[in-house]
Amino acid sequence: MSRRPARRRRSPGASPAILRHAFERYFARALPPARTTPPRLHQAMRYGALSPGKRLRPLLVLAACDAVGGDWRRALPAAAAVECAHAFSLIHDDLPAMDDDDFRRGRPTTHRRYGEALGILAGDALLARAFEELARLAERGVPAARAARAVRWLAAACGSRELVGGQALDLAAEGRRTDGLAVRDIHRRKTGALIACSLQLGALVGGAGAARVGELGALGRRLGLAFQIHDDLLNRGSSLRRLGKRAGTDAARRKATYPRAVGEQRARLEAERLYAGVARRIRGLGPRATALGEVVLAAAERVR
Amino acid sequence: MSRRPARRRRSPGASPAILRHAFERYFARALPPARTTPPRLHQAMRYGALSPGKRLRPLLVLAACDAVGGDWRRALPAAAAVECAHAFSLIHDDLPAMDDDDFRRGRPTTHRRYGEALGILAGDALLARAFEELARLAERGVPAARAARAVRWLAAACGSRELVGGQALDLAAEGRRTDGLAVRDIHRRKTGALIACSLQLGALVGGAGAARVGELGALGRRLGLAFQIHDDLLNRGSSLRRLGKRAGTDAARRKATYPRAVGEQRARLEAERLYAGVARRIRGLGPRATALGEVVLAAAERVR
Repeated sequence: MSRRPARRRRSPGASPAILRHAFERYFARALPPARTTPPRLHQAMRYGALSPGKRLRPLLVLAACDAVGGDWRRALPAAAAVECAHAFSLIHDDLPAMDDDDFRRGRPTTHRRYGEALGILAGDALLARAFEELARLAERGVPAARAARAVRWLAAACGSRELVGGQALDLAAEGRRTDGLAVRDIHRRKTGALIACSLQLGALVGGAGAARVGELGALGRRLGLAFQIHDDLLNRGSSLRRLGKRAGTDAARRKATYPRAVGEQRARLEAERLYAGVARRIRGLGPRATALGEVVLAAAERVR
Repeated sequence: MSRRPARRRRSPGASPAILRHAFERYFARALPPARTTPPRLHQAMRYGALSPGKRLRPLLVLAACDAVGGDWRRALPAAAAVECAHAFSLIHDDLPAMDDDDFRRGRPTTHRRYGEALGILAGDALLARAFEELARLAERGVPAARAARAVRWLAAACGSRELVGGQALDLAAEGRRTDGLAVRDIHRRKTGALIACSLQLGALVGGAGAARVGELGALGRRLGLAFQIHDDLLNRGSSLRRLGKRAGTDAARRKATYPRAVGEQRARLEAERLYAGVARRIRGLGPRATALGEVVLAAAERVR
């Protein structure tokens, strides 16, 4: 074995910029071309998924794989899978029966552009696509048992107890008084589960053992909570141009947000505390985790 | 090996009634209990999935597994997965932005009962659940490589080129003149793909080789087309009580149906011809395929 793992890890220079570039290339090809029958559906899928987002979740997959010493290129299907799942959830959350949002990432939402029926169907198809991508891991030399585990984890993270369940709780909480605990529970399901899953999938594909995978999952749950509180804060203060969606929509709909439940000052302190804790733990993972630390730092410093 | 396979196959007497009983028991436990947080979402999922349906697809999974000499009990997670996927598609197809149906299987549709938001979310969660179930195959002694393949096939069958794509084409065809070829294409995607996938998954879990799996898939595509033409014919003639949903809704919405495209008489002959061809091929599979033949016969003879 000698020093092979170390060489394999650094070979393509895993900076966040390189990870992002590789991901964008892979992702644009992973989705069916826009002319595939039925073309309107495939256009809607690409519109919803390829919109100019932060790509936090796929970058976490790739950087986590790199951080545990794996070859991050093998994790590209897993990165595409979590981004498909994320795009599905955004498209469905924006629907008239849900949050009824007209703008997202500075553009009309998918259902505003393609109609409600294609909005629903594009979300559905992206969720199915996520699992098709994950199943491809087995073709890229990832042991099939790990690919099957990846499917189970992502399905659970998207399912009725986590992401989808969080959205149901979020809608039920609209207009009602909710305390900090209840909001944290919603955030944990709606945002934390998929972010934690992204880190776990990266570690799993990278060949990490159960303890390391669990450690990254725990870190992801904190990161997800920080990220969502941060989002709540940005929604209160930002303009449409900075945020890419209408600011102040949470307050207008009296949504359950953390600043609303505990006050803006406490929410800000909590997000900072969580981010700092995550950054400290990532430093504890050693020099391999540099890219992962940079991805988290960029998330913490974002202003929209 | 001596005569083990033959003994293993017949041990629990795989009649359609026994398969169905085992499936209902398994399926009711496979879905999260109704009191799980968030309870309304889990109630909506159970309402949509456990409604009194024909269970054609899960029975095909189990009977196909039995037909290739496998232990059908190992295929129960795959049977639950296809039924979750089927329930997801029914719930979403019934939504106001889609077919806008108020009744299904003799009861109010899921969104009529739980509201539109929970209708969308219950469908989403059932689709995610389908993959969680499939991933469980690996825990039941099915080789992980086969479990991963099962995930890829089901994801493709549910995805933008097949089931979801068929629904998009179906909506686009509403009110427009469509010929027999175009309707067959819609039916093949919307109904045929998941029925073919059910037979393939059963064969795969049962340990069949690629040729046998392919043969059952081809048979499933014909069966799916026969089944959907049959459905179109029933929708033209049946009363609400027999059909469990409003009859004549296809004609009222000027949907693309096979009888409308080629005439009722030709549609009837086509369905009969397809069913007969499928039955003949199943007889060609030998005595192991008795239960499978009976499941198909029951589908062909249904009057609602």
